[in-house]
Amino acid sequence: MQIGLVGLGRMGGNITRRLIEMGKHEVVVFDVNPKAVDELAQHGAIATASLKDVAAKLKAPRTVWIMLPAGKITEDTIHALSSILQKGDTIIDGGNTFWQDDVRRAQALKEKGIHYIDVGTSGGIWGYKRGYCMMIGGDKANVDRLDPIFATLAPGESGVPRTPGREARDPRAEQGYIHAGPVGAGHFVKMVHNGIEYGLMQAYAEGFDILKNANIEALPPEHRFDVNVADVAEVWRRGSVISSWLLDLTASALARNDRLDQYSGFVEDSGEGRWTIAAAIDESVPAEVITAALFARFRSRKEHTFAEKILSAMRAGFGGHKEPQQHPDAPGAKAPEKLKPKDD
Amino acid sequence: MQIGLVGLGRMGGNITRRLIEMGKHEVVVFDVNPKAVDELAQHGAIATASLKDVAAKLKAPRTVWIMLPAGKITEDTIHALSSILQKGDTIIDGGNTFWQDDVRRAQALKEKGIHYIDVGTSGGIWGYKRGYCMMIGGDKANVDRLDPIFATLAPGESGVPRTPGREARDPRAEQGYIHAGPVGAGHFVKMVHNGIEYGLMQAYAEGFDILKNANIEALPPEHRFDVNVADVAEVWRRGSVISSWLLDLTASALARNDRLDQYSGFVEDSGEGRWTIAAAIDESVPAEVITAALFARFRSRKEHTFAEKILSAMRAGFGGHKEPQQHPDAPGAKAPEKLKPKDD
Amino acid sequence: MQIGLVGLGRMGGNITRRLIEMGKHEVVVFDVNPKAVDELAQHGAIATASLKDVAAKLKAPRTVWIMLPAGKITEDTIHALSSILQKGDTIIDGGNTFWQDDVRRAQALKEKGIHYIDVGTSGGIWGYKRGYCMMIGGDKANVDRLDPIFATLAPGESGVPRTPGREARDPRAEQGYIHAGPVGAGHFVKMVHNGIEYGLMQAYAEGFDILKNANIEALPPEHRFDVNVADVAEVWRRGSVISSWLLDLTASALARNDRLDQYSGFVEDSGEGRWTIAAAIDESVPAEVITAALFARFRSRKEHTFAEKILSAMRAGFGGHKEPQQHPDAPGAKAPEKLKPKDD
Amino acid sequence: MQIGLVGLGRMGGNITRRLIEMGKHEVVVFDVNPKAVDELAQHGAIATASLKDVAAKLKAPRTVWIMLPAGKITEDTIHALSSILQKGDTIIDGGNTFWQDDVRRAQALKEKGIHYIDVGTSGGIWGYKRGYCMMIGGDKANVDRLDPIFATLAPGESGVPRTPGREARDPRAEQGYIHAGPVGAGHFVKMVHNGIEYGLMQAYAEGFDILKNANIEALPPEHRFDVNVADVAEVWRRGSVISSWLLDLTASALARNDRLDQYSGFVEDSGEGRWTIAAAIDESVPAEVITAALFARFRSRKEHTFAEKILSAMRAGFGGHKEPQQHPDAPGAKAPEKLKPKDD
Repeated sequence: MQIGLVGLGRMGGNITRRLIEMGKHEVVVFDVNPKAVDELAQHGAIATASLKDVAAKLKAPRTVWIMLPAGKITEDTIHALSSILQKGDTIIDGGNTFWQDDVRRAQALKEKGIHYIDVGTSGGIWGYKRGYCMMIGGDKANVDRLDPIFATLAPGESGVPRTPGREARDPRAEQGYIHAGPVGAGHFVKMVHNGIEYGLMQAYAEGFDILKNANIEALPPEHRFDVNVADVAEVWRRGSVISSWLLDLTASALARNDRLDQYSGFVEDSGEGRWTIAAAIDESVPAEVITAALFARFRSRKEHTFAEKILSAMRAGFGGHKEPQQHPDAPGAKAPEKLKPKDD
Repeated sequence: MQIGLVGLGRMGGNITRRLIEMGKHEVVVFDVNPKAVDELAQHGAIATASLKDVAAKLKAPRTVWIMLPAGKITEDTIHALSSILQKGDTIIDGGNTFWQDDVRRAQALKEKGIHYIDVGTSGGIWGYKRGYCMMIGGDKANVDRLDPIFATLAPGESGVPRTPGREARDPRAEQGYIHAGPVGAGHFVKMVHNGIEYGLMQAYAEGFDILKNANIEALPPEHRFDVNVADVAEVWRRGSVISSWLLDLTASALARNDRLDQYSGFVEDSGEGRWTIAAAIDESVPAEVITAALFARFRSRKEHTFAEKILSAMRAGFGGHKEPQQHPDAPGAKAPEKLKPKDD
Repeated sequence: MQIGLVGLGRMGGNITRRLIEMGKHEVVVFDVNPKAVDELAQHGAIATASLKDVAAKLKAPRTVWIMLPAGKITEDTIHALSSILQKGDTIIDGGNTFWQDDVRRAQALKEKGIHYIDVGTSGGIWGYKRGYCMMIGGDKANVDRLDPIFATLAPGESGVPRTPGREARDPRAEQGYIHAGPVGAGHFVKMVHNGIEYGLMQAYAEGFDILKNANIEALPPEHRFDVNVADVAEVWRRGSVISSWLLDLTASALARNDRLDQYSGFVEDSGEGRWTIAAAIDESVPAEVITAALFARFRSRKEHTFAEKILSAMRAGFGGHKEPQQHPDAPGAKAPEKLKPKDD
Repeated sequence: MQIGLVGLGRMGGNITRRLIEMGKHEVVVFDVNPKAVDELAQHGAIATASLKDVAAKLKAPRTVWIMLPAGKITEDTIHALSSILQKGDTIIDGGNTFWQDDVRRAQALKEKGIHYIDVGTSGGIWGYKRGYCMMIGGDKANVDRLDPIFATLAPGESGVPRTPGREARDPRAEQGYIHAGPVGAGHFVKMVHNGIEYGLMQAYAEGFDILKNANIEALPPEHRFDVNVADVAEVWRRGSVISSWLLDLTASALARNDRLDQYSGFVEDSGEGRWTIAAAIDESVPAEVITAALFARFRSRKEHTFAEKILSAMRAGFGGHKEPQQHPDAPGAKAPEKLKPKDD
């Protein structure tokens, strides 16, 4: 099948190569960086020098997959394409777009007769080899038409055992892709996927933090353990209830350096956790864990919060408490049980 | 190797069978229920009629693995065994004991020269086939001596790819068992394992709740999706960042009935989540996600809390608000955006 | 001073009466319900039969205070007024409007030369007597011009002791009103006020819940207390660190009925908690407590969540656990410490 | 009435002075620091040089109030007194003792015929003037006998309006003290008081944090506000739903310095928050807000957590994400909306 691909970063480049190498698809590529275009041309892609050139080198009905950072650059590119493409063509946004932007864009493009498909794509830097788990939103007919593309990108069965009782259900799910619903549904489901991911990651993180701190001086000697967190991560990979790919990654990192010295402790977030919480609130669904996971990242990026200073100001006000000026939980600092509450 | 096994419920029975069938070990079994003893005798176990009988049928140094519900019954059995066993013998507690009880018991048994080993065991009803992931606490020499037992129960490599960089580390972790540290360390690590499990489960649960409620009438029509949660669970099993065994189980359940009608919504907890939070607090480690997961279970078991009535009482007090008497989020109830805040 | 008042519900009616009775202001009133208009006319207000009538009975520059439920009805009324009022006139929105709507509206009205002021108003049904705490957003000159109105509605010093060190600061704050900033700032600050309110309420609610449950059978007899929560609420009103108006209201409710039987347990939310969390997320500020308070209300309105059924499905999957079908924490249900964890 | 007072720190000293000055009680004082004894002797207390001396200077039945930091020093002092005092005497622990220690001690003292009373005391450094809000646990007869002491220490009505409907209830609550129940109940109720306090403080803290960050560059210009937090705290003191003593203290602190520069941001905790959560967990009561408040303090005392490094390790593993090395939320750092999510 023929497809255009705009945005040849790590994700777009790997998607292009997987389409060419595993699906024998014809991929017409463009990027503002000509080097990225050249490199993929050497892997069999058809190089172009502009969005117009992409359209020119594709036969109607054209399909252009955009793989750019969510936000202004994706928005601008779709806007530009909407003047270049023709009735019956299709734009696919494979990035991490906010699903409400999908809904808005599809409505605008519909007036020009241009189709829109949103693809939530999981798999990260491993997708080229493992395949991409895809959640697709759009018109049924159009999504079905493009099935060869999705089938190539998807991981396939991947050696994962079949779930019993799925005989009457959509077989695509077992290949690692689904048609999630109308436009927006793909990114919506992917957004929730990432929200879950935040919660899972934080659950592991808290657990390993508890293990790592099981030997602090503040604890009674008979209740202290010097836990080898690298071995713990490894052992949980086999036969335990909490085995997962995220645990595999954790075990790898801890095998290299079980103090994780190379990490600063600042943790970014990519937006999808925020949107998941907004969706939960719109639906009146309590989502404590996902929210706590996001807030832990926010906190990680601050030296101190104004909130904490407010707390100290109140404590000074009612109890005359003076807070420590240096990290009180640092090694050698006084033990919690020795804290002497003055009054409140 | 020879071992006694006391407590032949689902876990104890399966452990016995795995020891016999896969390790050719000699297992001397006892349970207060004679039927359970008989059944395992038919699988090759050596039947006994009492704890004394167990001791009599084992050669010194004896090893007795207790697999009973944590709490009084385990405590009583260990107390009884402490008068029956002799210096140099070993008691293994393979249940879900609170690790501080292990520490206390081991100190008492030490005076009689009896060894104590605590084994945190994960794997559930699948352990007979998959093997049991084990976290072991106790004296090094004694744990090493019993390695044949642990090696048989462990899952082995299980087809899980090796983690790079572990060459210099303990090879047992790659077989699914570790010597976690002195007495108590096994159950401590297992406790944290279960704490993590709570958080992971709640993260998935919240995500699927958000998907399930994406179609409620309160939402604007263009922002509603009728998500097939069974297909979503299935698709995430392949190539996605959040694939895991817990997700596999979720996909199975949703494939059978994607409304999960068979479940009441009440969710019990087994104690280890509570202890994990206590450990986090003792260590001054924030553990938001694990705690929120436990509290969600507490809340699931109540019709309404007194806390909620306090809230309503205040709202009536300052704003004259009257709360609904029937489920306001039930299908057909008024949409949140139509709520008319009166004053505060 | 002369002012129009549209929306004569509990809040609008009381504001009108306070303006007339305590400020001798001339208040031109309108409501879609003629009875509400008549009733206030008997208290000295100038009755009208339409928005046009309101405008006709006011001298330029006119000021019309709208006190309607946030959302469509407020939006429509402002839209209608924008065609009736003239350049130099002012619309005040005193309701619980989302502050971003203020910003949008003010921009639209500016093109017609009409001023906009947003007033976040706290005080509830007690405001008529106690006065209204007001947070005002708008142009400085216009806010200053309307000071006589705000000064009358504000509670004044109210017998609250002066805060030392405020000599150089805005004296209006000590009278119970502030000019919070440009348009939107009034409702923004009021929104945060309500977010805090959610957190405060939930903190008290949790505490009283812990007191109320201190006597459950699951606890060891020597650790059970039959706490008189009405007396506790009362005693904390005097000399304690947590005395507050919300506690006063709680003490009143508990004095009447310390089981709060009259409340269903369903707790609504008015939107401002949701917006506060959205603001926190936009600012990357962790807001755990306010969020947890909102989620507790969401949960109060559901019989069971899909999340909880997902948890049970997983527990059945890995451990064969069967959940209770009836409230396990109901009086007489088995104690938590008797729970028998099977495996995980 | 006659009473002994051991422990003359800020709290013990002020209690002594209030008993002498406002109740004309005879107070026999002791402290390991002779200067503290001398100073109170100048205010009319009867000085002693040892615990034995305290007992000698009191007539039977003796009452000794201990006001020392919770933990070992209080434990040791009570142990020493138990050999000095006689049958019929009473020990009062007015500190912040863990209520389960009260229960244990009272059982031990009962064998010697010595009574025990636990008094949870709120009021902090302001108690000398405002009086102390007291929650008292112990035998009814003994608590009633000592009523003159409690009545003197209590704040009395304090100008707080009476709660309607309390006619048939215990009048002591309106004077600021209650007999909460048997031994332990006093500290139990005080513990919950402090748990609530944690939640209240955190609610205010989060709200002010949201206000303080409403002007960050990451926000769209039309949605930014430069909020004067000192004025906001002040205005909420009058007529608002969230007025409270904690807000009064916050307003005072912000009036002095609205950036709170003098506070490091580290916030200690005194133990009672931890115990409140343990009680909630024992009772299966969800206590999200109180727990989140405690965890926020834990986090404030760490530069970075191991949990956060685990998160970064996972993000590097699945997405190749590189975290910032410097505070990304510092002034001038890139805005959240410019974050470019790569894949997950």
